[in-house]
Amino acid sequence: MLDLNALFDQLFPICRSITGEGIRQSMHLLQHVMPLQIHAVPSGSKVFDWEVPPEWQLHRATLTAPDGTVILDTAASNLHVLNFSAPFSGELSLDELQPHLYSIPELPSAIPYVTSYYQRRWGLCLSHEQRQALEPGRYKVHIDTEIRPGALNYATAFLAGESRETILLTSYLCHPSLANNELSGPLALVQLYHLLAALPQRRYSYQFLLIPETIGSITYLATAGQDLAPHLVAGMVLTCLGGPKQRLSLKMSRRDWIGQPSVIDQFARHLAMLDSDDFSVRDFTPCSGSDERQFCSPHINWPMLQAARTVYGDYAGYHNSLDTKAFMSITQVEESAQRLCQFWQLFELHDCYVRSTVAGGEPQLGKRGLYPTTNGPMTNQLSRDGSKDGRYVLNLLLQLLSLADGQFTLLEIAQKLTASLLDLLPIVLELQREGLIVLSTEPFGAS
Amino acid sequence: MLDLNALFDQLFPICRSITGEGIRQSMHLLQHVMPLQIHAVPSGSKVFDWEVPPEWQLHRATLTAPDGTVILDTAASNLHVLNFSAPFSGELSLDELQPHLYSIPELPSAIPYVTSYYQRRWGLCLSHEQRQALEPGRYKVHIDTEIRPGALNYATAFLAGESRETILLTSYLCHPSLANNELSGPLALVQLYHLLAALPQRRYSYQFLLIPETIGSITYLATAGQDLAPHLVAGMVLTCLGGPKQRLSLKMSRRDWIGQPSVIDQFARHLAMLDSDDFSVRDFTPCSGSDERQFCSPHINWPMLQAARTVYGDYAGYHNSLDTKAFMSITQVEESAQRLCQFWQLFELHDCYVRSTVAGGEPQLGKRGLYPTTNGPMTNQLSRDGSKDGRYVLNLLLQLLSLADGQFTLLEIAQKLTASLLDLLPIVLELQREGLIVLSTEPFGAS
Amino acid sequence: MLDLNALFDQLFPICRSITGEGIRQSMHLLQHVMPLQIHAVPSGSKVFDWEVPPEWQLHRATLTAPDGTVILDTAASNLHVLNFSAPFSGELSLDELQPHLYSIPELPSAIPYVTSYYQRRWGLCLSHEQRQALEPGRYKVHIDTEIRPGALNYATAFLAGESRETILLTSYLCHPSLANNELSGPLALVQLYHLLAALPQRRYSYQFLLIPETIGSITYLATAGQDLAPHLVAGMVLTCLGGPKQRLSLKMSRRDWIGQPSVIDQFARHLAMLDSDDFSVRDFTPCSGSDERQFCSPHINWPMLQAARTVYGDYAGYHNSLDTKAFMSITQVEESAQRLCQFWQLFELHDCYVRSTVAGGEPQLGKRGLYPTTNGPMTNQLSRDGSKDGRYVLNLLLQLLSLADGQFTLLEIAQKLTASLLDLLPIVLELQREGLIVLSTEPFGAS
Repeated sequence: MLDLNALFDQLFPICRSITGEGIRQSMHLLQHVMPLQIHAVPSGSKVFDWEVPPEWQLHRATLTAPDGTVILDTAASNLHVLNFSAPFSGELSLDELQPHLYSIPELPSAIPYVTSYYQRRWGLCLSHEQRQALEPGRYKVHIDTEIRPGALNYATAFLAGESRETILLTSYLCHPSLANNELSGPLALVQLYHLLAALPQRRYSYQFLLIPETIGSITYLATAGQDLAPHLVAGMVLTCLGGPKQRLSLKMSRRDWIGQPSVIDQFARHLAMLDSDDFSVRDFTPCSGSDERQFCSPHINWPMLQAARTVYGDYAGYHNSLDTKAFMSITQVEESAQRLCQFWQLFELHDCYVRSTVAGGEPQLGKRGLYPTTNGPMTNQLSRDGSKDGRYVLNLLLQLLSLADGQFTLLEIAQKLTASLLDLLPIVLELQREGLIVLSTEPFGAS
Repeated sequence: MLDLNALFDQLFPICRSITGEGIRQSMHLLQHVMPLQIHAVPSGSKVFDWEVPPEWQLHRATLTAPDGTVILDTAASNLHVLNFSAPFSGELSLDELQPHLYSIPELPSAIPYVTSYYQRRWGLCLSHEQRQALEPGRYKVHIDTEIRPGALNYATAFLAGESRETILLTSYLCHPSLANNELSGPLALVQLYHLLAALPQRRYSYQFLLIPETIGSITYLATAGQDLAPHLVAGMVLTCLGGPKQRLSLKMSRRDWIGQPSVIDQFARHLAMLDSDDFSVRDFTPCSGSDERQFCSPHINWPMLQAARTVYGDYAGYHNSLDTKAFMSITQVEESAQRLCQFWQLFELHDCYVRSTVAGGEPQLGKRGLYPTTNGPMTNQLSRDGSKDGRYVLNLLLQLLSLADGQFTLLEIAQKLTASLLDLLPIVLELQREGLIVLSTEPFGAS
Repeated sequence: MLDLNALFDQLFPICRSITGEGIRQSMHLLQHVMPLQIHAVPSGSKVFDWEVPPEWQLHRATLTAPDGTVILDTAASNLHVLNFSAPFSGELSLDELQPHLYSIPELPSAIPYVTSYYQRRWGLCLSHEQRQALEPGRYKVHIDTEIRPGALNYATAFLAGESRETILLTSYLCHPSLANNELSGPLALVQLYHLLAALPQRRYSYQFLLIPETIGSITYLATAGQDLAPHLVAGMVLTCLGGPKQRLSLKMSRRDWIGQPSVIDQFARHLAMLDSDDFSVRDFTPCSGSDERQFCSPHINWPMLQAARTVYGDYAGYHNSLDTKAFMSITQVEESAQRLCQFWQLFELHDCYVRSTVAGGEPQLGKRGLYPTTNGPMTNQLSRDGSKDGRYVLNLLLQLLSLADGQFTLLEIAQKLTASLLDLLPIVLELQREGLIVLSTEPFGAS
């Protein structure tokens, strides 16, 4: 039995970065709950316009006050060091120290999460309250980090379906102790793996991918992307899935943005219109976000969504020490995974063509118990003999049958009727049982 | 001289059903005013998902109260019997009788029109006032009906035009004594036949069809539909054309609904936009309506409109004894036919391409008396020398000429200008007389 | 140095008409500031539905009152004679005279400009105040004009660009002493010639054309139009460019009106949306306007705009003696030419395809100084290290790069982003310098 809560507690304290022991250790932990294969690309490898960085390793970083007190210590919080900070040891005046300190004036109690991956500098992060309490004097800085050649790691798992056509599901694993904007993604991904694996059949195969953000997706695309591309149907970046927001928000792919929406874009927009309590959509933008910026870069242009609940701008804890399990809920992560599983189940069905088996005219529904057998002013509210429902179900059934000429998919039918796919599903199944409709992933010939 | 009023009075008392003597007798009456050919399809014939029913014949039905009074008698109103009721004779308690009685609580004085064509049961219809006055006791039921093999009948007439391309005009003839929702349709059809026959020329041929509702159109489609289909340009179901509503309401075809509007759909929508006092449109729906549900079923998909004025939901008398000539007006039926004739005349013209005969630049209208011959600040309101009209006519003429490049039809031009086809017509005729434009049903080559 | 003011003062007093010495004399004056070639088409030549008229020459026209006072004299204003008036000498009563007099009751102090080119009549124009002061008695009319065979003249100049593909820039020169609705057009055209000639490079060639209105464009089209047509990219009629209105108003071509907008139509609509303080658009209409009515006649259908500022309906002086330099400003004419030059510069760039040179993923902007090198909650408002701009510029750059897949033009990118072409221009240039994008007039192959 998968215990996301325990998994979270194991992963949270690890000091991850885009490379190094932290991310490797995290991946090994996840291998206990998911058949992950870990890959390595050597530092210095050219990946498109970028280069795979060296590995970064934090041993410990401290700041000692003029009176000898250790006032910052990564043993207490690994956010206190600038992520990817160069090593440094020395004594400085407060004025000399200030340019190396990072804090958030607007959030005085929070330690910010700050990175400097590609420009070598050293730095320490602290709450603004703490910073303002610093007195003039000589400070001792001890940043014991290593930057050395190694590799960038990413991890994959594959779940085979009826076809080689593949859905890519990915999240990132490169932030240190942060909850919603780090661990909610990999945890939801693990849960989703288990839910999809348990389905009796899958039309598509599912490729799972864990990477460090940005450089990880660029490296994956540069080294393994061409193998997946010919089979890729659609994909999704999972991020920030543990916050309190009810609706799952889907960021559209670049294809949607440029007016050439992919199948997954169209499906997501439709779902968000019809099931607006549970799903919403956001336009693509390259100005912010996660790895979809790379998967959707202009010459890659994959049909990748990004799924999130409470995101940057929605909560104060974004990229700082307030982003803990106190804010993020494991239950919400599980519910996100559940809803994403429904999303992909519906996606597998939505583009099937529906065709009535009756050659002309309406089928005689009365003889099948699907229509009132008397007709008069008093039967107008019935959908079957005795079934008084304002005729909602019968009208949906009549409309579905009327549209079932074999040229429209279930999604197109639902769009036409502004009807939820969830409402249509039992009707589709009943009409299939009665032999009145057939479904096919291939369009039917002209009738 | 066609006398619709007298015709109505002959047809109204007949007890029609979907099969039997009633409908045959009605068709024989109509043969006096229109060259109808009557067709018969044997009971038991398989027609798509249905089967042609036996014939039903009402001799008489009565209900006798415990005190011996005959309280219901089809001699008074043929609505008193459940249409297609099985024969039955017997004595029952009031409790045993109740499940066989039909009334409308919301309309206590009206006798409902109720049918049970395909499920054998017996029944009687009465006003709710009458029903509530029934006292406990033994009631005598005598329903003298026959259900026996025979045929389903339908009737056709053909009006030849310049081409074999055909317009199908149809109405139904299967309800007993009801006015707006029965006789208004066949009567308007007869009148329309006379109006179209009197035109000096017809671009299309016109096929007239009278059927019992639903099973009649299914039977027609299954037995004769394939003969008409290759020639069918468009069609129209006529129903409920005698009520007080001013605007003629056109229900679009299924093709319009599925986003593949046919020529008649586009024409009707245009007309309703520009002549909105006289015409309106309704979306197609398979959930209610008349025979367009069959003509527009998914694998038939004919470009058939349905034309009506006051319909179900608009008037209390729908499907009950209040639907009489007291409600419906013969004058309104005649006006409906007149307007439908204009509809088809315009339809025959609307898709003709219009081409200016002047090879370049504007034609010199002044030399033809179509433009003021002086030009100055004081001529801006003139369309011709001395013709002060705020320039409405001249501007319409200039715009029509400007659009007359041979690639646009009259309808497209009217749509572009948001101008009534009726206003454009005299201008088109004048420019034709001057040799400045030519019209053609074929598109002109690129200019 | 071009002195439009001096040029105006030379041109204003000349009595121009659609043919004759006035227009020829004006063209000779313009030859001093622009390499104009003057063309002649003989009177009587058939040009489409029209015929080239004879030449008209005014010597002098006077009206003498019963008391012997000369009350109208073309020596004072050449508007006093009906333009193209037949010669006439005689004595008439006031009642006989009245049908030959033209005045504007609504503008009692203005002398109207009235023409009768194709219907031979004689006439005089005067202010309505003057007309109402006329006393009964015998009036002497002396209209000394000549109507004799000659030629219609038009003038052209050509400015070669990198390609033979040509922009047609035209104005008319046929009204007598009128400022905004006559001389503003030719003067702006001359200035625009000088501005375009001074550009370091021109993608297109530019054809300049001066004509008498209506018959001039018809004659040009009938005699020389076929030579230009294969090379024509777009064109513009310049008219009424000296009034006080701030926005330059662009009348769309007929192609836009018929729903087949040309490149220039799309460009103009876009520009007017994004630079709405400086540009606006008007729909095409054949009911009013200038030579675009002929250039956009149905079988010609050239992609020609008409550019104007203060037009008919916007100012009282339209087609009367109030249209002088007191109303029209030379500075405004110069500014119109300046803005039209920017219009054509942008037009030359707008349809170039933009392609990122990075094969996958985003380019690493940080190493090029185009992105902040630290990342944390406090860098979200930066577009570069230290450059605090609410990230407007960086976001525009990121979006431009994201859209630069080689399938979109600069205009399409600006439309997608609702961003001004003027704002995008420096970003495009910087990314070109960094080698991150390339531009091409040809679409790039699929990436």
